[in-house]
Amino acid sequence: MVEAPATEEGWFALHEFRSIDWDAWRNAPDRRRERAVEEGRSYLQHREALATADAGDSALFSVLGHKADLLTIHFRPTLDELSTIERGFENTALAEFTTTESSYVSVTEVSGYVSDAYFEDGEDADIDEGLRRYIEGKLKPEIPDDEYVSFYPMSKRRGEEYNWYDLSFEERADLMSGHGDVGREYAGKIKQVIASSVGFDDHEWGVTLFGSDPTDIKDIVYEMRFDEASSRYGEFGQFYVGRRFPPSDLGAYLAG
Amino acid sequence: MVEAPATEEGWFALHEFRSIDWDAWRNAPDRRRERAVEEGRSYLQHREALATADAGDSALFSVLGHKADLLTIHFRPTLDELSTIERGFENTALAEFTTTESSYVSVTEVSGYVSDAYFEDGEDADIDEGLRRYIEGKLKPEIPDDEYVSFYPMSKRRGEEYNWYDLSFEERADLMSGHGDVGREYAGKIKQVIASSVGFDDHEWGVTLFGSDPTDIKDIVYEMRFDEASSRYGEFGQFYVGRRFPPSDLGAYLAG
Amino acid sequence: MVEAPATEEGWFALHEFRSIDWDAWRNAPDRRRERAVEEGRSYLQHREALATADAGDSALFSVLGHKADLLTIHFRPTLDELSTIERGFENTALAEFTTTESSYVSVTEVSGYVSDAYFEDGEDADIDEGLRRYIEGKLKPEIPDDEYVSFYPMSKRRGEEYNWYDLSFEERADLMSGHGDVGREYAGKIKQVIASSVGFDDHEWGVTLFGSDPTDIKDIVYEMRFDEASSRYGEFGQFYVGRRFPPSDLGAYLAG
Amino acid sequence: MVEAPATEEGWFALHEFRSIDWDAWRNAPDRRRERAVEEGRSYLQHREALATADAGDSALFSVLGHKADLLTIHFRPTLDELSTIERGFENTALAEFTTTESSYVSVTEVSGYVSDAYFEDGEDADIDEGLRRYIEGKLKPEIPDDEYVSFYPMSKRRGEEYNWYDLSFEERADLMSGHGDVGREYAGKIKQVIASSVGFDDHEWGVTLFGSDPTDIKDIVYEMRFDEASSRYGEFGQFYVGRRFPPSDLGAYLAG
Amino acid sequence: MVEAPATEEGWFALHEFRSIDWDAWRNAPDRRRERAVEEGRSYLQHREALATADAGDSALFSVLGHKADLLTIHFRPTLDELSTIERGFENTALAEFTTTESSYVSVTEVSGYVSDAYFEDGEDADIDEGLRRYIEGKLKPEIPDDEYVSFYPMSKRRGEEYNWYDLSFEERADLMSGHGDVGREYAGKIKQVIASSVGFDDHEWGVTLFGSDPTDIKDIVYEMRFDEASSRYGEFGQFYVGRRFPPSDLGAYLAG
Repeated sequence: MVEAPATEEGWFALHEFRSIDWDAWRNAPDRRRERAVEEGRSYLQHREALATADAGDSALFSVLGHKADLLTIHFRPTLDELSTIERGFENTALAEFTTTESSYVSVTEVSGYVSDAYFEDGEDADIDEGLRRYIEGKLKPEIPDDEYVSFYPMSKRRGEEYNWYDLSFEERADLMSGHGDVGREYAGKIKQVIASSVGFDDHEWGVTLFGSDPTDIKDIVYEMRFDEASSRYGEFGQFYVGRRFPPSDLGAYLAG
Repeated sequence: MVEAPATEEGWFALHEFRSIDWDAWRNAPDRRRERAVEEGRSYLQHREALATADAGDSALFSVLGHKADLLTIHFRPTLDELSTIERGFENTALAEFTTTESSYVSVTEVSGYVSDAYFEDGEDADIDEGLRRYIEGKLKPEIPDDEYVSFYPMSKRRGEEYNWYDLSFEERADLMSGHGDVGREYAGKIKQVIASSVGFDDHEWGVTLFGSDPTDIKDIVYEMRFDEASSRYGEFGQFYVGRRFPPSDLGAYLAG
Repeated sequence: MVEAPATEEGWFALHEFRSIDWDAWRNAPDRRRERAVEEGRSYLQHREALATADAGDSALFSVLGHKADLLTIHFRPTLDELSTIERGFENTALAEFTTTESSYVSVTEVSGYVSDAYFEDGEDADIDEGLRRYIEGKLKPEIPDDEYVSFYPMSKRRGEEYNWYDLSFEERADLMSGHGDVGREYAGKIKQVIASSVGFDDHEWGVTLFGSDPTDIKDIVYEMRFDEASSRYGEFGQFYVGRRFPPSDLGAYLAG
Repeated sequence: MVEAPATEEGWFALHEFRSIDWDAWRNAPDRRRERAVEEGRSYLQHREALATADAGDSALFSVLGHKADLLTIHFRPTLDELSTIERGFENTALAEFTTTESSYVSVTEVSGYVSDAYFEDGEDADIDEGLRRYIEGKLKPEIPDDEYVSFYPMSKRRGEEYNWYDLSFEERADLMSGHGDVGREYAGKIKQVIASSVGFDDHEWGVTLFGSDPTDIKDIVYEMRFDEASSRYGEFGQFYVGRRFPPSDLGAYLAG
Repeated sequence: MVEAPATEEGWFALHEFRSIDWDAWRNAPDRRRERAVEEGRSYLQHREALATADAGDSALFSVLGHKADLLTIHFRPTLDELSTIERGFENTALAEFTTTESSYVSVTEVSGYVSDAYFEDGEDADIDEGLRRYIEGKLKPEIPDDEYVSFYPMSKRRGEEYNWYDLSFEERADLMSGHGDVGREYAGKIKQVIASSVGFDDHEWGVTLFGSDPTDIKDIVYEMRFDEASSRYGEFGQFYVGRRFPPSDLGAYLAG
């Protein structure tokens, strides 16, 4: 049996994809619509406010196409908080106008492919401050303001010829290193959050990309697809694209 | 890692497939039906009117079979405009009689397989005016009047033996060139719009074909299937076929 | 690139699979049920009446199992007529008691595998009258009365080892010839209609078999599965089985 | 082309999987519930009564899990009788509380793998009375009382390396013989009904197993999975498990 | 044909995944909500109380994400008891606010890979008391209090190159032994329940993991994925993650 990489986990993540029941919305009296906007806004602003306390982060996004209208992303230190958040939304008047179409449960993760030293020597490792901050940023990610988002789940292929889990640690580390090189080309343009869903959800990882230009999102995913780690070993689920907006704009969003 | 092609992007594209709720339509009073037709017509005509301003294009199509009744295609310079268009429809009285069954989000794209010179030397490239106009037509496509349409999403295979993303740039360029030769046989008969959905939607590209004879659509897709770029490397999603009609005919369309 | 076969197209085909809303039917007052039967009968009889005018054909079938209750097959010279037929049904009182569960859009096709001479020399080809009538029957098929029907969509495999679209024309013609030999064993027992859905629907062809003994349907499909054209290269979708009945029996059908 | 086995067909089979609308049931007044139980019981008892007349058989089963609550199996000499049975149920008051979730259409079949002599020499074959009775039991199966049932559809693999339909008749007969040996170990414990759905439904066969101990069902399916006919060539659909009960217990069943 | 392992079965298992109809819940009058909580609590507490009598076990879990809100796991000596439990829930007032989204039917199983001696010599085998207690714990599992749960169904691959059911008993026993070594590293942290669903449900086994730290769940599943028994031969269905809570907290759970 080949060696599994050491991993360190950070915040748990919940991605929720909801559609609007536009027929109900169109026909609802103003009073009910105002209450829905107000309760939804308040619920989401309270969740976002946590970011300042370093106890997690939350954000709201519009989503293009029929698969969903709204995406909320929540990062929290425990699964229990995510469970409370999920049920809390159902107690808002906004919930009456939405249906949860999909979701993803995962936990942010940094693995031994990134830095042997960090994992071998633990917190006392003689690693530079830059790497330490990099890892911290991966485990407790901040969600950037006013940017486009792309989310997709992925797994590593276990094909009869190309089987990721049959490769040696060194082969996998090499492939991940090449993969990281492509990512670094987009430094400053694309922020990536990688979270493991092994044992939690249907693929092995959830990938969330943020960027101020949606073409950069297309470009990084396309360029990485030529990278062996993806071309031979990547298996992808559904892709969602959208844009962050502040809960205070929820009324304007629903007004069309 | 093999080289990814350079790409240039044009307008973002939103394909929306909607079904009519015929039971609701049949039972609605005339006044509600008239208002739905009027609001739907007005909404769509305003969207189509943009075409003259070179700020995008929009069109309405009837679709055959149970997968959808109506298709709207919108090309716009930004994803944000597409998001507004999507929500805007939900505020028309026509929306009450429709359900969005599927959709596709993409961005028109020309890639380095078409012309090395164009991409290597940028806008100053010494390329002929014909090619420049060809590329411009691909990036900012006009939707032809009164023609049949076929839409399907596709990806390039990453099989254990035939893996598009493992081929060298030259091999891919050769295959795309053969593919283009088939397309050129149908010049004047079939207009193709290719838009990348990498990072945006579930396949890698959306393909939209327009033609005045639906048999030409069948013929070009069939002939291309024998081309190596498709036969060995193409993976296709669902196919939709329909015909463009002016929003002013919406009332007649709904009357059966 | 290997050679694609020449093809000639005939009538466009629309297969519609509908389920009955039995709860609504059971609870509807007699007057509404009578009107539904009467409008459905009239609509279908008018569509069937076209057969005498050589302008297409239409037929109604009961279907076994949960996938559908009713199948209507329409052959027409244009896609536009099929679009009108599809919407026309929605204006009958019968539509209120049905849901369209599935459908298939295709065009009858004869290909160069059948007769090189016919395709090479066009309509003036020196081919015998029997072949000419055979081809005419394939392109403008009559639907037999009171017989069982089986419908299924199919594609040709593009596997990494067995790839139909990589074979030479001669290899494909040989395989199709063997396939045809099995078909001829069932001459007089099974009538086959083959229609291409390339560019129109999710598989590449729709196959409709008619026979007076449903065991013959099972036998021909089973025997053909051992034929290389199917065993190595056939990929099949869902299968439906049913029996034709005259629209005048619609009331009796719905009475259980 | 390799040789297809000769086959003999018996009764057509309809498996119907229905769920109970428990919300409607809970809220229905006693009178409607009593009428539903009474009509359902009467309908099913009449169908079961046929078994004594050697004109088919019918039985009712409870099913575990969310896929269905009730299974009815009907064997009849013609597809037309199954069509009548299917629609007849919709005219009972019980139908209002059920939804048909799935179904399977097939015909019982014995093939040349079992006995060359039987098929080569026809009904006059010099085969022993035991084999004749065995075949008769396969073609006109009796459904045992008060036993557990497992149903699943299956097909034979047509993989690029392991392709059942590419094997010679002798290879297939050998594999089927080994498969039969496992079955014989369970003689007296498990009764198998095999019915072909080629051309009728989405897999190639429907398999129905009956046994008085559900562990025997698990054991025979598990043991057969190690048999080459299954391990290399079997492809399985969804599995359902349940238990027969008399229609007279329908009221008790619905009471929870 | 290779040898199937001997198996011993224990309790039958029913996993039920239900979603809450939050819209109905939000709008229900207090009296109906109180009755739903009270009947749900009472029903579940009675089922859990059985654990003390060694006649099975039952537990309630919250589930994260859109696939379900609640999971109930029931272990019982017979399938009939599980059928009664399933229908019994539908008679509670809580059922009106839930929909069963998924389920899994299986039977706990210990196989010959664990101990040849145990299976060869039966109950008189000279095996140590520790192993006997281990096996007893696998066949009649206790559900731990207040822990996280992960459930997923799995099958063994029957690929053209890697086919579990083609391996000799010794090869499979070796692979299972390596698999067991990983499991033992998590002794005291993760409790595994393995139950066969061969012939009962759509995969071959259901796996239920319990642990007080959800990261341990992710770690064990990830580490096992590098083990050949999983990397080459494991095929996984959907994953669910949640946490046990006492039925007495049902009211608080539903309050959000």
